[in-house]
Amino acid sequence: MKSTIRSTDLAHLAHVELLSPRPDDSLRFFVDVLGMTESSRRGDSVYLRAWDDYEHHTLKLTASKVAGMGHVAFRATSPEALEIYYDTEWYAPPPYLKPALKNQAQRFPARGVNVRRLDHLNLLAADVRALRLFFEDVLGMRTTEMIVLDNGDEAGAWVTTTNKSYDLAFTADHYGARGRFHHLTYAVDSREDVLRGADICLENGIYIETGPHKHAIQQTFFLYVYEPGGNRVEVDSAGARLVLAPDWQPVIWTEAERKKGQAWGLKTIESFHTYGTPPIEEYTGPRRT
Amino acid sequence: MKSTIRSTDLAHLAHVELLSPRPDDSLRFFVDVLGMTESSRRGDSVYLRAWDDYEHHTLKLTASKVAGMGHVAFRATSPEALEIYYDTEWYAPPPYLKPALKNQAQRFPARGVNVRRLDHLNLLAADVRALRLFFEDVLGMRTTEMIVLDNGDEAGAWVTTTNKSYDLAFTADHYGARGRFHHLTYAVDSREDVLRGADICLENGIYIETGPHKHAIQQTFFLYVYEPGGNRVEVDSAGARLVLAPDWQPVIWTEAERKKGQAWGLKTIESFHTYGTPPIEEYTGPRRT
Amino acid sequence: MKSTIRSTDLAHLAHVELLSPRPDDSLRFFVDVLGMTESSRRGDSVYLRAWDDYEHHTLKLTASKVAGMGHVAFRATSPEALEIYYDTEWYAPPPYLKPALKNQAQRFPARGVNVRRLDHLNLLAADVRALRLFFEDVLGMRTTEMIVLDNGDEAGAWVTTTNKSYDLAFTADHYGARGRFHHLTYAVDSREDVLRGADICLENGIYIETGPHKHAIQQTFFLYVYEPGGNRVEVDSAGARLVLAPDWQPVIWTEAERKKGQAWGLKTIESFHTYGTPPIEEYTGPRRT
Amino acid sequence: MKSTIRSTDLAHLAHVELLSPRPDDSLRFFVDVLGMTESSRRGDSVYLRAWDDYEHHTLKLTASKVAGMGHVAFRATSPEALEIYYDTEWYAPPPYLKPALKNQAQRFPARGVNVRRLDHLNLLAADVRALRLFFEDVLGMRTTEMIVLDNGDEAGAWVTTTNKSYDLAFTADHYGARGRFHHLTYAVDSREDVLRGADICLENGIYIETGPHKHAIQQTFFLYVYEPGGNRVEVDSAGARLVLAPDWQPVIWTEAERKKGQAWGLKTIESFHTYGTPPIEEYTGPRRT
Repeated sequence: MKSTIRSTDLAHLAHVELLSPRPDDSLRFFVDVLGMTESSRRGDSVYLRAWDDYEHHTLKLTASKVAGMGHVAFRATSPEALEIYYDTEWYAPPPYLKPALKNQAQRFPARGVNVRRLDHLNLLAADVRALRLFFEDVLGMRTTEMIVLDNGDEAGAWVTTTNKSYDLAFTADHYGARGRFHHLTYAVDSREDVLRGADICLENGIYIETGPHKHAIQQTFFLYVYEPGGNRVEVDSAGARLVLAPDWQPVIWTEAERKKGQAWGLKTIESFHTYGTPPIEEYTGPRRT
Repeated sequence: MKSTIRSTDLAHLAHVELLSPRPDDSLRFFVDVLGMTESSRRGDSVYLRAWDDYEHHTLKLTASKVAGMGHVAFRATSPEALEIYYDTEWYAPPPYLKPALKNQAQRFPARGVNVRRLDHLNLLAADVRALRLFFEDVLGMRTTEMIVLDNGDEAGAWVTTTNKSYDLAFTADHYGARGRFHHLTYAVDSREDVLRGADICLENGIYIETGPHKHAIQQTFFLYVYEPGGNRVEVDSAGARLVLAPDWQPVIWTEAERKKGQAWGLKTIESFHTYGTPPIEEYTGPRRT
Repeated sequence: MKSTIRSTDLAHLAHVELLSPRPDDSLRFFVDVLGMTESSRRGDSVYLRAWDDYEHHTLKLTASKVAGMGHVAFRATSPEALEIYYDTEWYAPPPYLKPALKNQAQRFPARGVNVRRLDHLNLLAADVRALRLFFEDVLGMRTTEMIVLDNGDEAGAWVTTTNKSYDLAFTADHYGARGRFHHLTYAVDSREDVLRGADICLENGIYIETGPHKHAIQQTFFLYVYEPGGNRVEVDSAGARLVLAPDWQPVIWTEAERKKGQAWGLKTIESFHTYGTPPIEEYTGPRRT
Repeated sequence: MKSTIRSTDLAHLAHVELLSPRPDDSLRFFVDVLGMTESSRRGDSVYLRAWDDYEHHTLKLTASKVAGMGHVAFRATSPEALEIYYDTEWYAPPPYLKPALKNQAQRFPARGVNVRRLDHLNLLAADVRALRLFFEDVLGMRTTEMIVLDNGDEAGAWVTTTNKSYDLAFTADHYGARGRFHHLTYAVDSREDVLRGADICLENGIYIETGPHKHAIQQTFFLYVYEPGGNRVEVDSAGARLVLAPDWQPVIWTEAERKKGQAWGLKTIESFHTYGTPPIEEYTGPRRT
């Protein structure tokens, strides 16, 4: 069977719901440290956006007993396990947030890390290959890079529905759990912005897991931190890198290549392979055997 | 009539032929100053590429009595006044240009401005509106920003077939000439790279027309120079700006807004409105009356 | 007569008093736009500092009918027309402004332009040569660069008492007035920070006079704005440039060289030669004839 | 006894001789990868400089059986175990290396990492305290930061004779050896330049030991590599950080603080504490017991 939804019907990763057991601290992190803007509230949820996100929100932050991801939405036309939609609410800034230039969604906040827009989402998968095929065949996304182990197992895949080299990544869950959240990423304009982001996280007592450094896979410049609720959040910069080729063939990384660590030799930190939300100690779902 | 080629059939701006009356000096500019790589030669032409361009070439530099543009090609399926194609030759680097990371087209040159990839093309148009409609209706491109004068005339349009906010721009030819070339742009990763580019052009005696500065329209950070053959070349950086919205409405700039100059107030230099190649003194074609 | 104070007795430019007819707006500019920190208040004055300034304050902002400079102080031992002192109050940050790293004066604010430290001061002089000789002979400063007109008149001088290539500059007052203030400069870490500063000034409706661009003289990367009280303020970055040579000879710039404009060809804006505070219309002091 | 040479008589770190068992490869590293310029040759030595170094050379590269440091020179007036001098040869660029701006030592190379100037030197010391006292008392340098262990031993000291926060550092030799070389550092303008430096080292197969990352001590942004001869070389950026205070008190770092790793949490790599040149296996001198 080939894809029932065509690639072009899926516009882009649109918003993600994060669950936090410390919602007030998480909110302060996203607003004061990352520099995001609160759009509205409803019930136990606060809706947030980065300054160049065009929609009403790209992040829904919801109080919850356990950290993790609530849902993910792509903007387009049709359903499946994911939430896919077309009708949306474009963000209309209040007067004090109107930008000086009319081709910008909102005034530049000049606060904290000043993240610009939602970039991508990374999920831990019990079965990477099955998930990749679902996104390729059912949702028409393209795989741009992959990790294939010596035994043929797929350990990671990066897929896209735009000219960004990935909108979504999934890596094998070390524990075989299903649906755990690895990280959500907001983009900034330059590698210097990522470095400044690390300075700011340090000043605010935010736990820096690893980075800043350059990924070998996808070559993005990364900083990984844990927001106070426990979810991993990345700030990244891709420079001018885009995938424009219509016949791009997935780049396959081997076990030997991955052992070299990140682009400049930094060894991948152990927790990057094992930590996700909910933390495995609080995970109660099924596991792959 | 609606578009006969659908937007998704046009992948991206692919290559441009520039004509130079001083081909040796032009070649030195592209290789030594911009840091591009020569892929091959044939007859009076040299084929060149930036380090992250995936195809064999994105620039064909051809000796000619008069400066200007030879042709422009988009990668896709069908023809028209433009050259459109699908079959291509992916770049295969010789051993000494193999990159350290396999997801990169070529080794980073570490020479001159180190431009990364072809970004966009700007043409002077006798009739901006007609050209815009052609690109929208026939080629399925989307217009993201426009200049509309108080009398209703269109003075400029920026169109795209990717998530970049423009792949092609056309602005009104002050002299009503047809098909003059305004500029070709190569992208770098950061605004700092553009600034360093200005330092390098200064050291090499390259004429800097204007910049570095930030455009109000499209917000790209620009540097405009004339290559030795007389053609205007831009080095730009867009940061993390992309157009992801499927229902993006063109941003319309008025005369009054344009009079404010560029983003931070720099007045647009006069030659930017009048100079193109071939220079008007050497232009022999028809003019709009 | 040779200098009565030796160069090494003058440590560095320490603080400057600015006079503002709109003190509340000026204060908002320095705190919210530039990202400075208020240290204390007394009478009509507010004391301010940048995040890496080690003293209690580097700027004293005082309400006044007319804009201009109140005084300038160097830290050291002896007096003259300037205020020179040794005893000082090191800044002791309150708990919420304690930095994460103990070798830093204060927590990074992550607000606005985040200026780092006082860099230099520029005065309009009725007699550049006389002022230069005073700073050289009496205060033991060194001249690193100068403008000498074809008729032998000195039109500008840059002097230093540190390894920075200048701490103080004076340029000829077009109107022959005495003691008018040209600008005060706070330094940031990179050229990218200056560019971001321009973005932030634009968003805040701050008048940008010129820049960002690179000076030919001293090669600093500049942005000039007017704070709401009317005083010109610069944000600059010098990269890794320092004057380390003990026998550095002043670089002399000629009229012809100055006509080339700034480093990358930007013409120096007219107001840069004529505007100072108090504005000439409000200036009531003596003039050179 | 107090210093016999006054602080101000020692102008700056001037040049360092490095010994290489692979002189041709080392030379290619300094010229092609770091972007330095060869000034002249004599015997087994090549004299090199960065583009903004004002003297004839800041690095003397000499063929040798074993890697290490030959000598270090400060520019000033009097002798001791170090080589100190005043008379020097200012660099006079040949026509093809003349800069566009006359206040610059040489044309910007636009090649490789484009290091700007010699920044500092780090030595492994058998007795840190004795060496610190020598530099303070005999040579009049100031200590800006130190590591003091819980038992009172000094494990590292950073001293300066300029407004840079250090020109020279010495850290305890793990093996108690005397006079081993730890690293030599060239400065670039921005943290982005250091990152690009890492990209370039990766492309050239240069061993990256650690970084880019930010030091907690001194807050410089570092990249450590081994040049082909085995000597450790650093590329760093300090942003706008300077020590201007005449009464700066040394910042003392404790064992507990050092265990936190570098500024953003990167653990200090083991070889950083043990590797120096000559490598301990080839070291034949005395050791502290």
